[in-house]
Amino acid sequence: MTIKDIARLCGVSVSTVSRVINDRPDVSPAVRAAVLEAVRKSNYIPNNSARVLVSSSSDAVGLVVRGLSNPFYSDIIKVIGRSIDEAGYTMVMQQIGSREDEIQCGAVMEREKKLRGIVFLGGRSDYTAEELRPITVPFVCCSYDNSFGSLGADRLSTVSIDDGQTAYSAVSRLCALGHRRIAALVSETDDRSISELRYRGYLRALADHGVEPDPALVACAGSFGLEDAYRATRELVAGGAGFSAMFIIADAMAIAAVKALEDCGREVPRDCSVIAVDGLPLSQYIHPTLTTMCQPSERMGAESVRILLDMIEGRSGNRRLVLESELRGGASVAPPRGAAD
Amino acid sequence: MTIKDIARLCGVSVSTVSRVINDRPDVSPAVRAAVLEAVRKSNYIPNNSARVLVSSSSDAVGLVVRGLSNPFYSDIIKVIGRSIDEAGYTMVMQQIGSREDEIQCGAVMEREKKLRGIVFLGGRSDYTAEELRPITVPFVCCSYDNSFGSLGADRLSTVSIDDGQTAYSAVSRLCALGHRRIAALVSETDDRSISELRYRGYLRALADHGVEPDPALVACAGSFGLEDAYRATRELVAGGAGFSAMFIIADAMAIAAVKALEDCGREVPRDCSVIAVDGLPLSQYIHPTLTTMCQPSERMGAESVRILLDMIEGRSGNRRLVLESELRGGASVAPPRGAAD
Repeated sequence: MTIKDIARLCGVSVSTVSRVINDRPDVSPAVRAAVLEAVRKSNYIPNNSARVLVSSSSDAVGLVVRGLSNPFYSDIIKVIGRSIDEAGYTMVMQQIGSREDEIQCGAVMEREKKLRGIVFLGGRSDYTAEELRPITVPFVCCSYDNSFGSLGADRLSTVSIDDGQTAYSAVSRLCALGHRRIAALVSETDDRSISELRYRGYLRALADHGVEPDPALVACAGSFGLEDAYRATRELVAGGAGFSAMFIIADAMAIAAVKALEDCGREVPRDCSVIAVDGLPLSQYIHPTLTTMCQPSERMGAESVRILLDMIEGRSGNRRLVLESELRGGASVAPPRGAAD
Repeated sequence: MTIKDIARLCGVSVSTVSRVINDRPDVSPAVRAAVLEAVRKSNYIPNNSARVLVSSSSDAVGLVVRGLSNPFYSDIIKVIGRSIDEAGYTMVMQQIGSREDEIQCGAVMEREKKLRGIVFLGGRSDYTAEELRPITVPFVCCSYDNSFGSLGADRLSTVSIDDGQTAYSAVSRLCALGHRRIAALVSETDDRSISELRYRGYLRALADHGVEPDPALVACAGSFGLEDAYRATRELVAGGAGFSAMFIIADAMAIAAVKALEDCGREVPRDCSVIAVDGLPLSQYIHPTLTTMCQPSERMGAESVRILLDMIEGRSGNRRLVLESELRGGASVAPPRGAAD
């Protein structure tokens, strides 16, 4: 009696039987009961290499995570892991620093681990065809796209938000409230990555609202880390260029920036509004609650795996998916002081 | 020319060559230069399945992470992943909910993925020999021990802090400042896990300081999640039993509890002191900075892998390692109001 026999007996798919056996939530109670009953009657032992029967000799799917200190990735990694597992594949993960080369890492993994496909979580947005040559299996760029590259839509798959437009929306919101001196806290302004894309969205919003950009208001932290964001914000304040609001490219950086502002005697949002991008669950529990543009992290992870498996299993070619970000209002944004007086 | 030849040529170990090829930091500049020179001269192509040569046919090491929403695990997972990788093995990770059975999950993985060994990150502290029978490869319990079990030290390996003693230290600190009405926010008081261990440490500290425990001051959140911690704290306040301090079993829960206290009009630490256990980096960037007992998370991950590999490679049997936790003073603890007046 194999898992396939159980599936046939119950008139359901093998993956449904697998989900029941592994106690996953997304199975109806009736189907669950029927499958468990069939398992009981058949003396089928799920422990004993059940899923090996449904997987080929190499069932490894790689996940390359670039950016060690990005808590935004935690939820995505969970969803990706679960999605890969439920499809009967094995996730092999490597985490690399934000200055390391994800393509090189993926290429080495592809050969060593005999990968069927790869999800890149975080990476550069300017790949060339030449740079991608070492990767010979299907892959999906999760949370970033190819904005700075010139690759045709058939050359790679991406699942991301529109980073420039998301930053544009956030900064436009500050402008609409009357802010004119708006600082930006980024990782880099020219790293061909989401930091640069969001920085460009910031500049575009300022331009569209008739605000002259001031280089003295742009703080480069050099990373997405807490410590760097804290330091860069203190240096920004110490620099002396006045500002009434900050646009920050990531929630975690914003949490550190709020702390830095308060340690400099500036209260948020009274003395400085703060708006960010990501939508970490934790950002709802800091003081003040962070106003932020939420990325649909769970959907991003699930869609990345879906597109990858469609390619691995020959159902479709490369695809690009742009998901919507959504404002989550918090208590960290207010009109500039004196604006309403 | 294989990686072994390169190693012999340079007079270093195979794993050192592997670290250089993969651009890891922990190699001296001189050795790095020598290895790269040898690689260049030999026309050795590292990309092309270099590490496959040093690994056996099955090089998979499992990591079972129990507790999806515990940010404390993020740093440990990174260190475990890197340590497994540097030793030439492949990490296969599965994340399960805090109510799922890690042993069952590990047993299925062991068979399906042909694991050489397993690290369990989070789990129950009361395993019996019978329960562990499905696991036939070496394994290490990381971040928890067998306090509630009766297994001999030769039956399983653990790397953890002394959870009871750590909670005892935290609560004793509150008592020493004059607090007598000390609430506890836990996941469960009787789940045979670190939550119960820390709860017992809390009770022991109260007893040693002559404080009568009050069941009305014990809040069970049911999980380590932010939302549950927030809700449980609000319910505790609404319950009406007065308290001047809270002991909280995890940093993430404490962040949500501080928010709940403030939303109820209680300022931390003026109206209520808060002390926690974990030492998340982020806890230094909230307001007020959290006072917490730090677990040595990186060392915990590295030692778990070291002990596991010692067993896999036959260098030693089971071991138990208890690491020290350390107070990180923040701004969330003060004497009770009126105490110093």
